[in-house]
Amino acid sequence: MVAVLNSGYVQLLESMGGDAAVIRNARRCWRSESSGEDADRKLIRHLLRQGHKSPFEAAVFTYDVKTPLFVARQWFRHRMASYNEESLRYCTALREYYIPDSLHEEQRQLWVDQQEKAFDAYETLVESGMRKEQARSVLPLGTYTRFFWTVNGSSLMNFLMLRLDRHAQWEIQQFAQAIFALARKEAPVIMDEFDAIVVRPHESS
Amino acid sequence: MVAVLNSGYVQLLESMGGDAAVIRNARRCWRSESSGEDADRKLIRHLLRQGHKSPFEAAVFTYDVKTPLFVARQWFRHRMASYNEESLRYCTALREYYIPDSLHEEQRQLWVDQQEKAFDAYETLVESGMRKEQARSVLPLGTYTRFFWTVNGSSLMNFLMLRLDRHAQWEIQQFAQAIFALARKEAPVIMDEFDAIVVRPHESS
Amino acid sequence: MVAVLNSGYVQLLESMGGDAAVIRNARRCWRSESSGEDADRKLIRHLLRQGHKSPFEAAVFTYDVKTPLFVARQWFRHRMASYNEESLRYCTALREYYIPDSLHEEQRQLWVDQQEKAFDAYETLVESGMRKEQARSVLPLGTYTRFFWTVNGSSLMNFLMLRLDRHAQWEIQQFAQAIFALARKEAPVIMDEFDAIVVRPHESS
Amino acid sequence: MVAVLNSGYVQLLESMGGDAAVIRNARRCWRSESSGEDADRKLIRHLLRQGHKSPFEAAVFTYDVKTPLFVARQWFRHRMASYNEESLRYCTALREYYIPDSLHEEQRQLWVDQQEKAFDAYETLVESGMRKEQARSVLPLGTYTRFFWTVNGSSLMNFLMLRLDRHAQWEIQQFAQAIFALARKEAPVIMDEFDAIVVRPHESS
Repeated sequence: MVAVLNSGYVQLLESMGGDAAVIRNARRCWRSESSGEDADRKLIRHLLRQGHKSPFEAAVFTYDVKTPLFVARQWFRHRMASYNEESLRYCTALREYYIPDSLHEEQRQLWVDQQEKAFDAYETLVESGMRKEQARSVLPLGTYTRFFWTVNGSSLMNFLMLRLDRHAQWEIQQFAQAIFALARKEAPVIMDEFDAIVVRPHESS
Repeated sequence: MVAVLNSGYVQLLESMGGDAAVIRNARRCWRSESSGEDADRKLIRHLLRQGHKSPFEAAVFTYDVKTPLFVARQWFRHRMASYNEESLRYCTALREYYIPDSLHEEQRQLWVDQQEKAFDAYETLVESGMRKEQARSVLPLGTYTRFFWTVNGSSLMNFLMLRLDRHAQWEIQQFAQAIFALARKEAPVIMDEFDAIVVRPHESS
Repeated sequence: MVAVLNSGYVQLLESMGGDAAVIRNARRCWRSESSGEDADRKLIRHLLRQGHKSPFEAAVFTYDVKTPLFVARQWFRHRMASYNEESLRYCTALREYYIPDSLHEEQRQLWVDQQEKAFDAYETLVESGMRKEQARSVLPLGTYTRFFWTVNGSSLMNFLMLRLDRHAQWEIQQFAQAIFALARKEAPVIMDEFDAIVVRPHESS
Repeated sequence: MVAVLNSGYVQLLESMGGDAAVIRNARRCWRSESSGEDADRKLIRHLLRQGHKSPFEAAVFTYDVKTPLFVARQWFRHRMASYNEESLRYCTALREYYIPDSLHEEQRQLWVDQQEKAFDAYETLVESGMRKEQARSVLPLGTYTRFFWTVNGSSLMNFLMLRLDRHAQWEIQQFAQAIFALARKEAPVIMDEFDAIVVRPHESS
């Protein structure tokens, strides 16, 4: 489990296929067999450079994620993936919200005070008989949520390309880095080559 | 434009294909020609009953939607559709938030007071130099957002089946009814049959 | 590996998640924990009856399939899945084609004679310098092809519902049965309940 | 209708949104209004260069296509689109097959002879009582088929990028060019910029 921001995390729960399945699937096209690690790495490089995405769909990952709602909203825009999230229709919101490290004292006081009052109001409304699904209207966008994310290698790399980018919001960049580090252990050849061919050239551009 | 909730709306911007395209596409399978309105209606009925979805993808709709964020979150879970939304990374949030009609006086005072304070805090944080994308953490989930939604007939009916259902949250049901009413003008045969075969049997069950 | 038709097969290569991941993902929504096998089975049953599909996306399967081209064409219509297929642009077609068991002698002679001549023509054209990608125009739709298929549990059940059905072509039904039998070992609770709730009621209707 | 190959064609049946919808959708993100044609063109250019695809999903196109089966197989690999095709389970195959222009006399004789015999065998088998869905096993991959194709601007450009490319099979390149020419009339700014930024740099690389 990798801690992210003040209360978030990312954890890899399951992984399937990895480097071997992607290489096997790519080779099916030509009915070819692997001729060693170097050849396999070159093949991965070729696929990434030419934008041949389908073999990467044979590697699949499931993550457990805890993140503020405004980050989850950006995340869920990635439609080629599966999501199962805690529902605030059925669950009572926990008093957990994002606090940036970068706040100066005055901002921090205003921030914490506001978020605490929002949870106070939420709890009062629920106690007064309002349904949770409606009372959540007063909860802040910084409230933490948790979801399971199942994604294949092609869609994962698309997520990383956009969310590791320096134009992405800083907060989701932190999650993307944690996701990337965990994927790297499961599919080291793919993720190394992806880093060299896609991620690092973007950073310096 | 159909007004929904206290400040929301739904508007149909563009529509393509309608009943005629769906009937034409379904008939391609058998290389058959239409033999009149009755036969066409029976064909639509057959497709809906058998779960043959692909011909309905030839009818496409684009809506303009204004809705609270917690409703938008439910909406965006429908992945077979296209979304373009106002971004609170770049736009300053407007002081517009959901207020349920059903609140009794005490609840209403607490609700409005809390939401106004949240926007006060947001504005103070932005004025103090915080980036909008970060300051939005204190905004409430009841804040209104606007997005364009492009969806084909098959995915639209799946949305309506789930969101017109009495188990759906009341607020998104209101939007689903407005969406349905507007689609009905563009594809009356499809939407009438869908109503009779899918929507009404669910209501009474 | 399960043999299907005269020269086809289906093999399960990888599987992820299974029953446990689906149950875990479904429970996230309510932040609930499993209370035993019976409760888990009831939950699966509830999801299937209500059409809650997203938790089933946490179970993922990769198959190796060898099937005639006309079956592959039906199979590839299922868009929520990943495919890597041998390409007859780059590979020389092998002389392997479908022969139905049900042919009477006269039909069989005509059939085999025709298919052999098609491969003769293909080979002659390739030898005369024609590119393989063009020469394949004379190959029959009964030619065998091989592909890897990665599919999640939700999309797999949709495939099975349509292709186990007695209205599906007999040949793809045979493949669907082999796919189903192999999935059953990986996700026995899901597939048993799916059989009871979806497959068997269809058979008798 | 644009004729392609010896008996194929491409026809645009419906189109929705075009340049205007894409520009409108892109501007929603910043809550901005158009400030003239030059600004709009620059915006399109920016979206294409940055890989911002979602606004292009507001432009939607439906085509009627007649193409050999081996081309259709490549086409249907593009999963982010809708297909309705003539079914050879229900329709009798017409004696229409691809003949390349480039054949020298000897090849042409072998080709035509082989394809005619394949249709002869098909017809004999059907007349002998075999179901059409099974008899099609002897039909050649060069047999023409017809389908309706509904695709949004983002997915269309992905198709064009891959299928206009000189590494694509020559036959599908011809169809891609016809598709491109017809899209150009419906969304001239998008398709011009796409040509300049994506298609032409690829050609010369």
